[in-house]
Amino acid sequence: MGSLPLPESAINGADADDVFRPLDPDDVRSYLHKAVDLVADYLQSVESLPVLPSVEPGYLRHLLNPSPPTSSAPFDVAMKELRDSVLPGMTHWASPDFFAFFPATNSAAAIAGDLIASAMNTVGFTWQSAPAATELESLTLDWLAHLLRLPPPFMSSSSPGGGVILGTTSEAMLVTLVAARDAALHRTGGMSRLAVYASDQTHSAFFKVCRLAGIDAANVRAIPTSAGTSYALDAMALRCRMEEDAGAGLVPTYVCATVGTTSTNAVDPVGAIADVAAIFNAWVHVDAAYAGAACICPEFRHHLAAVERADSISMSPHKWLLTCLDCTCLWVRDTRRLTDSLETKPEYLRNDVTDSGDVTDIKDMQVGVGHRFRGLKLWMVRRTYGAAKLQQHVRSDVAMAKMFEESVRADERFEVVVPRNFALVCFRIRVWGDDMTEEDADEASRELMGRLNRTGKVFIAHTVVGGRFVLRFAVGSTLQEERHVRGAWELIRKTTGEILHGRQA
Amino acid sequence: MGSLPLPESAINGADADDVFRPLDPDDVRSYLHKAVDLVADYLQSVESLPVLPSVEPGYLRHLLNPSPPTSSAPFDVAMKELRDSVLPGMTHWASPDFFAFFPATNSAAAIAGDLIASAMNTVGFTWQSAPAATELESLTLDWLAHLLRLPPPFMSSSSPGGGVILGTTSEAMLVTLVAARDAALHRTGGMSRLAVYASDQTHSAFFKVCRLAGIDAANVRAIPTSAGTSYALDAMALRCRMEEDAGAGLVPTYVCATVGTTSTNAVDPVGAIADVAAIFNAWVHVDAAYAGAACICPEFRHHLAAVERADSISMSPHKWLLTCLDCTCLWVRDTRRLTDSLETKPEYLRNDVTDSGDVTDIKDMQVGVGHRFRGLKLWMVRRTYGAAKLQQHVRSDVAMAKMFEESVRADERFEVVVPRNFALVCFRIRVWGDDMTEEDADEASRELMGRLNRTGKVFIAHTVVGGRFVLRFAVGSTLQEERHVRGAWELIRKTTGEILHGRQA
Repeated sequence: MGSLPLPESAINGADADDVFRPLDPDDVRSYLHKAVDLVADYLQSVESLPVLPSVEPGYLRHLLNPSPPTSSAPFDVAMKELRDSVLPGMTHWASPDFFAFFPATNSAAAIAGDLIASAMNTVGFTWQSAPAATELESLTLDWLAHLLRLPPPFMSSSSPGGGVILGTTSEAMLVTLVAARDAALHRTGGMSRLAVYASDQTHSAFFKVCRLAGIDAANVRAIPTSAGTSYALDAMALRCRMEEDAGAGLVPTYVCATVGTTSTNAVDPVGAIADVAAIFNAWVHVDAAYAGAACICPEFRHHLAAVERADSISMSPHKWLLTCLDCTCLWVRDTRRLTDSLETKPEYLRNDVTDSGDVTDIKDMQVGVGHRFRGLKLWMVRRTYGAAKLQQHVRSDVAMAKMFEESVRADERFEVVVPRNFALVCFRIRVWGDDMTEEDADEASRELMGRLNRTGKVFIAHTVVGGRFVLRFAVGSTLQEERHVRGAWELIRKTTGEILHGRQA
Repeated sequence: MGSLPLPESAINGADADDVFRPLDPDDVRSYLHKAVDLVADYLQSVESLPVLPSVEPGYLRHLLNPSPPTSSAPFDVAMKELRDSVLPGMTHWASPDFFAFFPATNSAAAIAGDLIASAMNTVGFTWQSAPAATELESLTLDWLAHLLRLPPPFMSSSSPGGGVILGTTSEAMLVTLVAARDAALHRTGGMSRLAVYASDQTHSAFFKVCRLAGIDAANVRAIPTSAGTSYALDAMALRCRMEEDAGAGLVPTYVCATVGTTSTNAVDPVGAIADVAAIFNAWVHVDAAYAGAACICPEFRHHLAAVERADSISMSPHKWLLTCLDCTCLWVRDTRRLTDSLETKPEYLRNDVTDSGDVTDIKDMQVGVGHRFRGLKLWMVRRTYGAAKLQQHVRSDVAMAKMFEESVRADERFEVVVPRNFALVCFRIRVWGDDMTEEDADEASRELMGRLNRTGKVFIAHTVVGGRFVLRFAVGSTLQEERHVRGAWELIRKTTGEILHGRQA
């Protein structure tokens, strides 16, 4: 941003009478301190806002001037429009009454780290372009691997293991799937022969990633699960399917095991899956996006048993580990298997350090080239709160979920659909009374969700398992306390009473 | 985060005597105000820091305690370690003496918007999960499309057009390539028959994305370019190659045209390319990652001529439009072509608004599911600075680049390798004197880059075009003023003198 005199034509009609300094230190301080106060006020008051807004599609264009602004405006104008028009249309993930999906937990340390990353704005495609960012990311991943008790082969301190912080679990699945795919292609040739496996409870992201990677849809297996295994993948069923496929000339290439499925937090048996995959030399990826965070506590670590036999594992601190979006950690046993597929060597990114082979450039472990300094916020969280506080955080959420589960179990109108593993309680209104069918119970449960969400006092989402409509009560929004869980339960009880009373009337 | 009494075992050894509140309002205010002061101080002093640090791979583990922290630490500890250990190992993209790659420009408004997004931490996979974020992103993309004079079909205000903010250009290429691929597969069957096209100057990201999408490497065409077209794609050469491929039974599927290549800012002729692609019904994507920003000025808009005939276009405000990472805008003429390939409908994300068909859920236009509130920072930039200031910003950078180019041209020891289109000057030490070969000139230019970068006073990167080593001098780091450009030129002159004098001696 220079101060060269511009030709007349260049400043035609512009408020360009003065030099434009987008990073003017006074502006930086003033805008950012205002933004800090806004977010602190927001977090203090978010409890009073409707969790789900009552706006209709298109609402914002009615509120904001739809014409693009030509001239500049004081920063306060944007802040006012944000307060008056944007905030009222937000679904408040930060609300303590948010029980939908999985919580997007957060912390003061993470936000601070992310702010600093935004301001420094490094682009860490190569080690040279961001040595500190590259190394801090690697160190932080090792620290988190240590906390999860991942075996040394997943750590960068024991090459060729290591990891990378990606934006989403989908990206973690994509890069590992592509690595597995290319290795299988190398062995066998013929994309159309590759087959991949997951349970029917695996996140939809997996099936989309298979499409992205060009896996033939006819060879993407969603192994059926059932209540008998609490909707976890049955390793025997997996083996049968893989044998059948191999017998038909297909090449079993990749298995995605989930620790904590989205619908019900089912935990696939990683060890048994690895046994089966080993027969076929298939890649095993463990998706522990949400529940991986719990495994930092010794009492939950058994859910990751046998992870040392997987090829890769991903978990997302932006879900349950107090780190704002985007932050998905991927660890692989052999980073060369990623870089074999993902490496590029354009001349304009070559440099002596890369050529020396002493470093791994992050661009070669991800989809894109540019790489935000995501490691900073995660390091800030890990450095500031330490293992003990992070464990306390997980345990506290699980204790609240347990409390909620006990309330549900004690009320005969409800059933808990699957055993609770972490901080998600899956329940529904059950069939009770002679004239009620399962379909009626589905309908009543759906009606309950609709009524609850329309109050603005809570936000609860649903799933369907075993053909039944199920409410997912996900505890753990960062500002949540027992009183919010108890308050939600009281509202659920009362509303259910109204619905069932209405049915009887 | 609850305050339930935890069992003794749960707090074993932990500093868990008090409730842990990761978003305690006092902490939020205090941590964030400290972070703001750090970044403001950083931006004020970054000019005094070596642009490229002199650290060696592995340096950070020597400085930081490599053992993962067990207990919590005051926030100031992390801030101190950041200052003492991380900062000295940074490559300072914010430095006004940064001339490498393309600048990652930034602004007070963008950082503020990104901070608010981090704190609110919405996850906008569906409209329901983030109505305001979804709509603000859409409005902001329309505003930017308006500024770029993209035709109405690319705007969400004229369905089915519209856009999405992604993390990287690679992701924009991947989702459009997959959409084009799937449409071609639908018509023709047989992945192995699909062929895709770009010039040999197209960013390495394109070739990687082809790999990700499973395009047969044998069918990925990098059409050779030459100095004759200033390294722009020759539409006749493209047509010949496509005809040859079609004659051999292949299906030309996708062409990537670049407006502003990374090496030299070459501009591919979008109109002529669209003519050729139309013969084969191939998708045309325009990658204007860097130079798209310039096209907000009428005098540069001709570089996007005929964009109305492309199927999609992407540009990255995180490069030259004052918006910190990650921020790549993708516009498509028909969002249904994206969603046909990318849509997922898991039960746990279904809701009435989605089912109504009145909204497009962002998850169906991107690789992943989660979606950070990226629109906020871009809206903040657009709202606060307005069209005029943004145009002034581009023009100022171009004027400085022009000044530098004139200096280079006036010095007989150098040659400008290609005509300058935007704010990138590509130059090298030229052959002069009888005993100097082109290889000597390459070596001298390389030596010049190395010496310059080792001073810490500037950071300049290179490329190779036409087989020759070329220095890329990219003007536009946000804090840059004429004195930095002049200072860099003085250093280049002086250092070149030393190198050439050394040769003669």
